[in-house]
Amino acid sequence: MAIDRVDAYLDAHRGDFEEQLKALLRIPSISAQPDHDADTRRAAEFLLDDFRAMGIGSAGLIETKGHPLVYAESLNAPGRPTVLVYGHYDVQPPEPLEPWTSPPFEPTVVGGNIIARGSTDDKGQMFTHLKAAEGWLKAGGGLPVNVKYLIEGEEEVGGANLEAYVKANREKLACDYAVISDTSQFAPGIPAITYGLKGLAYFELIVKGAKTDLHSGMFGGTVANPLNALSSILASLKGADNRIAIDGFYDPVRPLEAWERAEFARLPFSEEEFREQTGAPSLEGEVGYTTLERRWARPTCDVNGIYGGYQGPGPKTVLPWTAGAKLSFRLVPDQDPKRVAAQFRAHVAKVTPPGVTVEVIEHHGAPAVLVGVDSPGVRAASRAIEAGFGTPPVFMREGGSIPVVGLLKDNLGVDTLLLGWGQNDDNLHGPNEKFSLADYHRGIKASAHLLAELAKEEVSKSGGA
Amino acid sequence: MAIDRVDAYLDAHRGDFEEQLKALLRIPSISAQPDHDADTRRAAEFLLDDFRAMGIGSAGLIETKGHPLVYAESLNAPGRPTVLVYGHYDVQPPEPLEPWTSPPFEPTVVGGNIIARGSTDDKGQMFTHLKAAEGWLKAGGGLPVNVKYLIEGEEEVGGANLEAYVKANREKLACDYAVISDTSQFAPGIPAITYGLKGLAYFELIVKGAKTDLHSGMFGGTVANPLNALSSILASLKGADNRIAIDGFYDPVRPLEAWERAEFARLPFSEEEFREQTGAPSLEGEVGYTTLERRWARPTCDVNGIYGGYQGPGPKTVLPWTAGAKLSFRLVPDQDPKRVAAQFRAHVAKVTPPGVTVEVIEHHGAPAVLVGVDSPGVRAASRAIEAGFGTPPVFMREGGSIPVVGLLKDNLGVDTLLLGWGQNDDNLHGPNEKFSLADYHRGIKASAHLLAELAKEEVSKSGGA
Repeated sequence: MAIDRVDAYLDAHRGDFEEQLKALLRIPSISAQPDHDADTRRAAEFLLDDFRAMGIGSAGLIETKGHPLVYAESLNAPGRPTVLVYGHYDVQPPEPLEPWTSPPFEPTVVGGNIIARGSTDDKGQMFTHLKAAEGWLKAGGGLPVNVKYLIEGEEEVGGANLEAYVKANREKLACDYAVISDTSQFAPGIPAITYGLKGLAYFELIVKGAKTDLHSGMFGGTVANPLNALSSILASLKGADNRIAIDGFYDPVRPLEAWERAEFARLPFSEEEFREQTGAPSLEGEVGYTTLERRWARPTCDVNGIYGGYQGPGPKTVLPWTAGAKLSFRLVPDQDPKRVAAQFRAHVAKVTPPGVTVEVIEHHGAPAVLVGVDSPGVRAASRAIEAGFGTPPVFMREGGSIPVVGLLKDNLGVDTLLLGWGQNDDNLHGPNEKFSLADYHRGIKASAHLLAELAKEEVSKSGGA
Repeated sequence: MAIDRVDAYLDAHRGDFEEQLKALLRIPSISAQPDHDADTRRAAEFLLDDFRAMGIGSAGLIETKGHPLVYAESLNAPGRPTVLVYGHYDVQPPEPLEPWTSPPFEPTVVGGNIIARGSTDDKGQMFTHLKAAEGWLKAGGGLPVNVKYLIEGEEEVGGANLEAYVKANREKLACDYAVISDTSQFAPGIPAITYGLKGLAYFELIVKGAKTDLHSGMFGGTVANPLNALSSILASLKGADNRIAIDGFYDPVRPLEAWERAEFARLPFSEEEFREQTGAPSLEGEVGYTTLERRWARPTCDVNGIYGGYQGPGPKTVLPWTAGAKLSFRLVPDQDPKRVAAQFRAHVAKVTPPGVTVEVIEHHGAPAVLVGVDSPGVRAASRAIEAGFGTPPVFMREGGSIPVVGLLKDNLGVDTLLLGWGQNDDNLHGPNEKFSLADYHRGIKASAHLLAELAKEEVSKSGGA
């Protein structure tokens, strides 16, 4: 069978694949640093060369206002599904350099891990999909499905140009499935499909009282203090049970399903190890839920920043005229960020004490993502992961957000398969970022099998092919 | 009578007194600015020359680690009381200069007010006592009581050297009455004796949760957030009735006496004008009390500063590991700052939510001051003010603290007569600081009469004479 020839090719080229990844990792494609603009482009060109070398149908750079997009496609599988693979070739700045045990752009293998900036986020994970395609093109007689690769160079700086491109090119990017490998496995040896991400509703509160700072002796006790008022407003957001005390907030929250609670509960997760990792005196969260449930599937509210009055050393007896806070809610299905904003505004209006005015600024919002796990795509991905990793994946959710998932859903109408090959301790964004070479090869194999498995599934809707 | 000859002398020398004050105001004795150290000393020497010119018994500069103290005394009234007059010759920096309508150290008379840095705080007010002494020495046949003048040059920078001097020289400074003119009248035409000052208990709270900042998506809802926790703690300090919700806090609070409430109520005070002055949407304070009562005679609690997490522009989804706040209580008789600190600590321990630790730092504390108004000193001061201003004083309290009052009480055992000749809108510490020349002359006359009136009172205890 074709897949066996592909597997054999992948096995035979492990050394090459490692050298190619190292070459890519040597390019300091730090999108945030204009000094490295030429390097960043060089990484795009490296990928373009790789696509061309494998003999894919068409490949090119798409210029943007910033760093280029790399786009490649092969649409030679009529009647088969179309898969869009997203990834990014830019990396976080490596600074601070001091904690690195080897230079961030000199890939070094230690204990089976390749240490370099971008190794897991996202060069190493993204590159598995190119190597899988190479296997099919070189040894499998061509790609078993239609594929579109969209690799951006600005993920670490906000991805605004990608967003504009996707919105303007819905037809070109049309697909049946989107795939992203930019997350983590649950733990070493426990590959995962991430089927849920939280949404976000981010606000800033600005409280004002008097028109200027006042002397707290001359005026204290006669006018409302915006810092006291802000504290009251923030304190009102959660109860002692750590539930969010905003009217109607939980109404649209989709309860955890029985299978999810069972799935989370069977994961090898130590609350005590997790607590130690944070250094917090104890774990605290919404009553009635485990830590994993709170983390992945329950809405949360955190004050992200607070400011007002005198912050210097020692005392100053000022009655400040204004104070502010940034705070955010992590949302779960089916909470609507707009509705949460309205509920939050109503709550603030209700609890604001007299004597101050409050301005509510909406910073940004995004709904949560939840992908049905009994879909053809998830079934195919499960089989592919089992082939690549030797064990079927667990199903997990994430507390964070990946904006591109919503972008693809909104513009292309597709759910994304989040197939992460990394580990939680890969130190992405930190020093000594690493990626397991064993997981790199397993990921390549899973990516190759994914294309075969998707080819077996019904085309759920008209893709681009 | 001697006092008539003194009054005549004062009337005859009004022009001289104005010129002398202008000369003093021309000296930029900015204690906080080392560039002006020579000027600051020059102001001290100016006063020393003035004391010598009036022919007082002895006068000299007392060197300190910083700016010198000016000390003068006349102890030629055996069997009569001893009065210690405190004042300061240093001034606040004049910056920002732009809003000044005339240069801060070029005294300019506009509409009967002398505009200059230090005109009201405290050169103009302090100098009235020197001119009064001059009147007695030049025209009254000598001072009717024993007097000690202690004029410092570091009031605007903390007065630590004065404190050390007073503690080390209790015998030398022993007196029956202390007098300070460094406050305000209630309003134009309404001179006042300030008989109460609030005390202070100032704290900082530092709340800690995890050992580092965490991603609010990955960790939100699983560990306590120090900013949320801090908000809860601060919100718990006051109820909706604006009463301080700390167990036992009000136990030692001395209630307003009926005469005080009546005295405050009869003062021409417009709550609406006061509100407009602050710019606050409404006046808010402890239920059951008027604004003047809240301001002068009820304890208060204000958060003075708050900090934690992300304070930059835009959103950042951080779960901060630590947050802090500075807050203070203004105390009234008979609250003890140490006891308040213990009550505050107990309260914080009680209301701190699980999952965080809280450190309470005590910045500083001072008890409130309340002088009996039916004392010989207050009676004498009332008669003196009536003589100088043509109307008897009202009795008022202040929301602020004047540390030297406690210093003199603790070390010399005397109450201070706070006889302010300034006005609330004199802009002390601000641009275009002013002092009414009419009030300057009234203050000189009242100061002169004060010595005569105190001479009539019983010596309450053994003074320095």
